[in-house]
Amino acid sequence: MAKNVTPRSSDFSQWYLDVIRAAELADYAPVRGCMVIRPTGYALWESIQRHFDEAFKETGHVNAYFPLLIPNSFLEREAQHVEGFAPECAVVTHAGGDELEEPLVVRPTSETVIGHMYSKWVQSWRDLPILINQWCNVMRWEKRPRLFLRTSEFLWQEGHTAHATREEAMEETLRMLGVYETIMKDVLALPVVTGEKSEGERFPGADNTFTCEAMMSDRKALQAGTSHFLGQNFAKAFDIRFQDRDGEVKYAWTTSWGVSTRLIGAIIMTHSDDDGLILPPRVAPVKVALLPISTDQDLISSSLEPKAMELKAAIEDRIGPRTVALDRQYHLRPSDRFFSHLQKGVPLRIELGQKELENRTVRLVCRDNGERIDVPMEGAPERVAEVLNQIQARLYDRALKFRRDNTHRVSSIEEFKEVMESKGGFVEAHFAGTPEDERAIKEATGATVRCFPSGDRSVGRCFYTGREGRLAIFAKAY
Amino acid sequence: MAKNVTPRSSDFSQWYLDVIRAAELADYAPVRGCMVIRPTGYALWESIQRHFDEAFKETGHVNAYFPLLIPNSFLEREAQHVEGFAPECAVVTHAGGDELEEPLVVRPTSETVIGHMYSKWVQSWRDLPILINQWCNVMRWEKRPRLFLRTSEFLWQEGHTAHATREEAMEETLRMLGVYETIMKDVLALPVVTGEKSEGERFPGADNTFTCEAMMSDRKALQAGTSHFLGQNFAKAFDIRFQDRDGEVKYAWTTSWGVSTRLIGAIIMTHSDDDGLILPPRVAPVKVALLPISTDQDLISSSLEPKAMELKAAIEDRIGPRTVALDRQYHLRPSDRFFSHLQKGVPLRIELGQKELENRTVRLVCRDNGERIDVPMEGAPERVAEVLNQIQARLYDRALKFRRDNTHRVSSIEEFKEVMESKGGFVEAHFAGTPEDERAIKEATGATVRCFPSGDRSVGRCFYTGREGRLAIFAKAY
Repeated sequence: MAKNVTPRSSDFSQWYLDVIRAAELADYAPVRGCMVIRPTGYALWESIQRHFDEAFKETGHVNAYFPLLIPNSFLEREAQHVEGFAPECAVVTHAGGDELEEPLVVRPTSETVIGHMYSKWVQSWRDLPILINQWCNVMRWEKRPRLFLRTSEFLWQEGHTAHATREEAMEETLRMLGVYETIMKDVLALPVVTGEKSEGERFPGADNTFTCEAMMSDRKALQAGTSHFLGQNFAKAFDIRFQDRDGEVKYAWTTSWGVSTRLIGAIIMTHSDDDGLILPPRVAPVKVALLPISTDQDLISSSLEPKAMELKAAIEDRIGPRTVALDRQYHLRPSDRFFSHLQKGVPLRIELGQKELENRTVRLVCRDNGERIDVPMEGAPERVAEVLNQIQARLYDRALKFRRDNTHRVSSIEEFKEVMESKGGFVEAHFAGTPEDERAIKEATGATVRCFPSGDRSVGRCFYTGREGRLAIFAKAY
Repeated sequence: MAKNVTPRSSDFSQWYLDVIRAAELADYAPVRGCMVIRPTGYALWESIQRHFDEAFKETGHVNAYFPLLIPNSFLEREAQHVEGFAPECAVVTHAGGDELEEPLVVRPTSETVIGHMYSKWVQSWRDLPILINQWCNVMRWEKRPRLFLRTSEFLWQEGHTAHATREEAMEETLRMLGVYETIMKDVLALPVVTGEKSEGERFPGADNTFTCEAMMSDRKALQAGTSHFLGQNFAKAFDIRFQDRDGEVKYAWTTSWGVSTRLIGAIIMTHSDDDGLILPPRVAPVKVALLPISTDQDLISSSLEPKAMELKAAIEDRIGPRTVALDRQYHLRPSDRFFSHLQKGVPLRIELGQKELENRTVRLVCRDNGERIDVPMEGAPERVAEVLNQIQARLYDRALKFRRDNTHRVSSIEEFKEVMESKGGFVEAHFAGTPEDERAIKEATGATVRCFPSGDRSVGRCFYTGREGRLAIFAKAY
């Protein structure tokens, strides 16, 4: 069996790219920094989208679509926003054969153009809240692209809401952080830590940014999703005003929140192994690979395939349409057939050969730990569903244990440096420093403040300044 | 009740825009020619997408995502393609603060970049067919934009397939035309005519283009979807070659096919009336508006709303989640509440007041013909489903009758001119002319060949050249 994936231990970056290539998730596009999301990768994105979209709708949000191109002058209306995004923009200067009067940027994010539209739609308190989400492509030019993690174009959702009061907007910001956390944990099996960003790590134009931080299997952090409390910054820049119940004209309070195709990178780097991709069953588009195995063509066509078709239908009835891939690659050796599904991350393989047929059983093989389970054909769909749930739980538990095992408490910068050099991972410490202190710490350790975790609101002596500070999590990050 | 929609008879174009505005389907964006698809419009697009996407998957297609930006040089590799699309392209010349070495066009369609990727993915006959679809935004700069019909940016799907043989590729081209036709008829209630385009109306780079042509209520034609047989043109331009079973290296045969947000324009202009939008139930995101009606707040909160919630749940159980909108606009007069749903095209209104409560009935009011039906509360969900099916059928039948009533057979150019001037609509005639003849006919009548319909393969004397020709349908078109 040819191994074509570099071991994680020898070169993590190469391992990551090899996993993507072997699973046929994505390819670099002919335009530098851009990617092609191949069918296997896109099906995964569709599955991710379905879960988030359903949760957005359940919490009262509706989808809409805003234009790809934004007048350059829009960006300039919010000072921090333009400073953050202008250097990364792709710019359209010509269209329809003519030079444009004003250059248009390809959206790097849509607060500005959406703010412009909201100012037209909002007049009265009755028009609020506006709870809109958009699924789209965005572009931020990347000098050092990396598939799914940093590409010049990526796919994402961006929620943009407007509210009558500060409290409501803050509630929304935290509600969506909670929606993200729930789906990341329950569906993607990512045991994320949620919390508030430090001032230096906020979204350009936000008063507050909240984040979901995941630990990858190289112990680095990955920001998996963010929810921003924008205060009245964009409302003032784009004149989103409304007449309140009391007759007064007020500026609205806005939020924005997003997750992107980066989540695919998070899934890969959390769960996969040296053989290739491992997908949590709840998000895997194909949950089961079903393989009739024999060298006897007659047996295949008279017995194995009909039985397999029957089984596929019964399992799909139980766990959803198009979740079982029936493998007919009879021209390959069984081991190569196994390997092709294994590398695509399919959570469960079912083998069906002459022996199984005679015993009226099927053999289940778990992708994550290689466990083999022979189960009676009768009742197999229920057992498959059960085993898939077990795999889901195992993947989450393993990732959670890994994060806990690699989270270290420190109380001095020396200890911090020592931990980062010898072990890496997440460092917990009380912290009360300034953005300048954060830069100095990054210089010394390579780590940045990932967040002040919501789960631990303890206050203690800052390891760096000695002042009283909140608990912070530091890590090297993607 | 304030009427804010211009009557169709006085100004069809203004009526169209008024319907869109009143239903809150879309707005012009701050960038000329681009649109914002508002939540009501986007929910309709999502519903359209779901139906098509399901049919694509049922016919073995998978989704993927290719990059937004395409090197200008790619377009130039197919002579007709660049001639057709280059003048409409938006061009990115700067990115990440630098001028690009080669300008990049925002995709007007993706045959070129997808052809480039297929050439890397296809080596053997075993790699074929490739059956990929993409949902995305595209950009074709418009000098005279019109919401949904012609906008500089629009949303669409583009299917791109590659096959080992000419026959297979032609089969695919026609299969997808059939998928389009079925959904347009059964779901969108558009009685389209399918057929082959004339040489002058083909997609730039195609050997053959097939189309679905719908008649709008101003009797003009709208091209609702197209399926292209691309021969080996793009395979040769992008070097998509494979080793066949016989060992020979051959060029693949490719197809492409697409429908876009233009379909929303087709739905509007086929079904709506002078009050505003009418949506066919099967594609309407909100199928029922449910209105508790009373001026007695106690009755509302103690009886009407609880009953309405119960009814909403029961109906949604029957016809799908989030299909019933519970209207709580008690601050408006009932007539204004009715009108707000009517203008949004909601197929069925249910009224629930004190009288209904006493009689244990609800009143159904059909959007299309105003029919009122009092039905027992018991069993109401089944009746609602039935009535929605009746509305669906009525809308289709009405549109089909309208098309038939406005289709005229001619046998000379004089008769053709006379019909176009006095009646408009579709003109049927046998035709054997050249692209030059088509241009002359357009000059004289304003009409172009919409298609040679698949349903009538009769041959007869060409009304223009006297030669033997196929039956063609001519019309003025959007």
